Amino acid sequence: MVEAVREPRQDRSRATRRRLLEAAVDCLAEVGWTGSTVLVVAERAGVSRGAAQHHFPTREDLFTAAIDYVTEERLAHLRANLPNLPPGPDRTAAVVTTLGEAFTGKMFNAALHLWVAAASDPHLRSLVLPLEAKVGRETHRLTLAALGVDEKTHPGTREAVQATLDMARGLGLANLLTDDTPRRRKVLSQWTTMLTAALTTP
Amino acid sequence: MVEAVREPRQDRSRATRRRLLEAAVDCLAEVGWTGSTVLVVAERAGVSRGAAQHHFPTREDLFTAAIDYVTEERLAHLRANLPNLPPGPDRTAAVVTTLGEAFTGKMFNAALHLWVAAASDPHLRSLVLPLEAKVGRETHRLTLAALGVDEKTHPGTREAVQATLDMARGLGLANLLTDDTPRRRKVLSQWTTMLTAALTTP
Repeated sequence: MVEAVREPRQDRSRATRRRLLEAAVDCLAEVGWTGSTVLVVAERAGVSRGAAQHHFPTREDLFTAAIDYVTEERLAHLRANLPNLPPGPDRTAAVVTTLGEAFTGKMFNAALHLWVAAASDPHLRSLVLPLEAKVGRETHRLTLAALGVDEKTHPGTREAVQATLDMARGLGLANLLTDDTPRRRKVLSQWTTMLTAALTTP
Repeated sequence: MVEAVREPRQDRSRATRRRLLEAAVDCLAEVGWTGSTVLVVAERAGVSRGAAQHHFPTREDLFTAAIDYVTEERLAHLRANLPNLPPGPDRTAAVVTTLGEAFTGKMFNAALHLWVAAASDPHLRSLVLPLEAKVGRETHRLTLAALGVDEKTHPGTREAVQATLDMARGLGLANLLTDDTPRRRKVLSQWTTMLTAALTTP
């Protein structure tokens, strides 16, 4: 009976914590780093200030957890999508499209606000940098596997894959202030042609 | 005699205005949008608060002028460099290197802080968007001319040039928190190979 009572409470607590983290991401993406205070996040999550402070006593606690959450969500999206693309001649296009999606949208915008804030905040930078390096390494590895290429045997593959991620990042930034979707589609289509040629040319 | 007195004063006034704009860019690049107040900028410029307010009565006046200044400086850099690259087989590499430089460094970082701040500030966005569109169009035109290619006659050229600018932007963002120069050089070198192939393949 004790367990039965404790379990739902733990579930509720976990759900509240998750709601706060989701609200922190929404706030970051919409009002940026400076405007994302614990109070603003708690209001958005529909959680009392006291309950929010029970989970995250300080703004630093909240955003340390939010940075982890953004990292894990970005990686979870890529892990769920990149390894499951159908093989065949359209696979490169599908990989490029999936990466284009991973570098636009709410999670990317939240991460972008964190990076830019970290540029002038050494403590935030020390939190963001190792997680960003992890996202970079893992995205690179997942992309190689999804493309079915080996960077050790084909010269230029490593840099071509990195260039793909850099372009996706640049396209994400271009999408921040206006909806850049039609232009992005054309660029990614041309990129697919160029990447296919680079990966298959001996 | 009246002219002789007025002229140096106008020169001094122009020099002070320019010092304030340069300091505004330095502040944006180093402490970001929120920390870049008129007082912080004036102190950095070595200009009294009163003199700063004579030139720019409000923070909005200062940053409206600073956004123009960043735009003009970014374009001036490209106009000074892209049309003067030596012709020959290394021209594509030189164009790609020049673009890589244009999207890193102080002016790019200042622009990046403005874009991200504009994402959650509709007024700032209305100032930034038209100038950003101008930089985009002009950079595209200068790049086409520097590469010596015509986007009307060769399919995919337009998108390949846009992809180049998107990658340069992504590389600039990757350089924000750490010095990414060695990796960037390798990616741009591979990109030169791929771009050359795309522009010459029928």
